[in-house]
Amino acid sequence: MQFFFDFISPFGYFGSLRIDQLAAKYGREVQWRPMLLGVSVLKVMGLKPLLETPLKGEYIRREFDRYARRHGLDLKRRADDPMMDPRACGRAFYWTAARHPQLAKPLARAMLDAYWAQGLDLSSAEAIAALPLPQGLEAGPLAAGIQGEEAGRLLRAAVEESLQWGVFGSPTVRVGSELFWGVDSFPMLEEWLATGGW
Amino acid sequence: MQFFFDFISPFGYFGSLRIDQLAAKYGREVQWRPMLLGVSVLKVMGLKPLLETPLKGEYIRREFDRYARRHGLDLKRRADDPMMDPRACGRAFYWTAARHPQLAKPLARAMLDAYWAQGLDLSSAEAIAALPLPQGLEAGPLAAGIQGEEAGRLLRAAVEESLQWGVFGSPTVRVGSELFWGVDSFPMLEEWLATGGW
Repeated sequence: MQFFFDFISPFGYFGSLRIDQLAAKYGREVQWRPMLLGVSVLKVMGLKPLLETPLKGEYIRREFDRYARRHGLDLKRRADDPMMDPRACGRAFYWTAARHPQLAKPLARAMLDAYWAQGLDLSSAEAIAALPLPQGLEAGPLAAGIQGEEAGRLLRAAVEESLQWGVFGSPTVRVGSELFWGVDSFPMLEEWLATGGW
Repeated sequence: MQFFFDFISPFGYFGSLRIDQLAAKYGREVQWRPMLLGVSVLKVMGLKPLLETPLKGEYIRREFDRYARRHGLDLKRRADDPMMDPRACGRAFYWTAARHPQLAKPLARAMLDAYWAQGLDLSSAEAIAALPLPQGLEAGPLAAGIQGEEAGRLLRAAVEESLQWGVFGSPTVRVGSELFWGVDSFPMLEEWLATGGW
C-alpha cells in the first residue's frame, strides 16, 4: 500500500505519524509517496488553497489545533504560519529513494518533524542538508542532488503518477485500487485492512 | 447538539442514518438543521459542485458506492443522477418544525428515504405532500405551507444561522461551539462525546 502526502499538509503530517503502525497491525508495509497539492488542488482541480477558502479555512485551523491536542503533539508551527515551497523536500525524498530506498522514509520523517514540530523552513537544499540525516546519507551529495535535474524529473513523475491513481488530497492511502482520503478516513481504512474490504 | 445536512448530500443522508443512535449512546438528543450547499459551497466558498470537481468528483462517486456496500444500503439513486433542487424539502422541514416540532425529523427521514432509497424527485411541494407523511401532518396544508412566504423565510434564516456557526459541508455536527465535518469524522465525534472533549 502507498501513503501519499504533501510535506506542507498538516493532516499529511498527522497521517505520517500513524500510518506505518496502523498498516503493521495487518502485516502491511507502506511505501511513502510525497505529492504536491499545488499541482492536484490548485492546477488540476482549480481550487484555491484550503486555508484561503471561506468557512473551510477556519474549520481547518481549529481542527489542526484540536487534532494536535488530542494526540498530544507539541508543534512549533501553527496552521496559519507562512508555508514553505515543498518541492525541495519532494526532490530530496525521490533523489534519496533512487539511491538508498531504505533511507527515504527516515529522511521524510526528519523533514516532517523539522517543518512541523520544530517550525523550520525547508524550502532550500541547504536547509534540508543541514538536518540530522539518516546514517548513510551525506549532506553534500544530498544538497547537490536536490538541485539536480534528476530530482526534479523524479518528483514530476511521482506527482504525475499520483494523479493517475486519482490522488488529490493529503493524506491519501492507496490499497490496491482503493483510495482513502484524509486522516479522518483512517478508521475506515483500518476496517478495510482488517476485513479485506467490502 | 445539532446535525446540519443538505437533502441532496449523499453523506448527509448517510449521516442521518447514524447520528441519532450515536448521540443517544451518550444521552444526547440531536436537533436536525437542513442547510443548502448551494449557498455555503457555491456562493460563500466560491467552489464548484463536488461531483464536477476533477479527481475529487471521481473519489466521491466511488466512496458513495463503497459506503453503501459497507452499510448494506440498497439505494435507487446513484451519485451521478441529476440532483433535485433541495429547497422544497428545506421549506417543508422548517414549516413543519414551526408547527409540529416533533414531526419535523420524521418528515425529514421520509424525504431522505424517498429521495435516496427510492430515487424520487422531491423538488415540488406536490411531490413532498404525496409522500406517506408522519401522523398529524396533513398533505394539503403542508403543500400550501411549502409554497408560502413563511417557509422561505424560515429556510433562509436557518441557512444564515448555519453559516454563522461556520457550517460549510454536509453533514456537519455541532456540539457546543465544536464542529465535526463529514461522516468520516463520526468516530472522532463519538470519542468527543464519550470523553467530554480535549
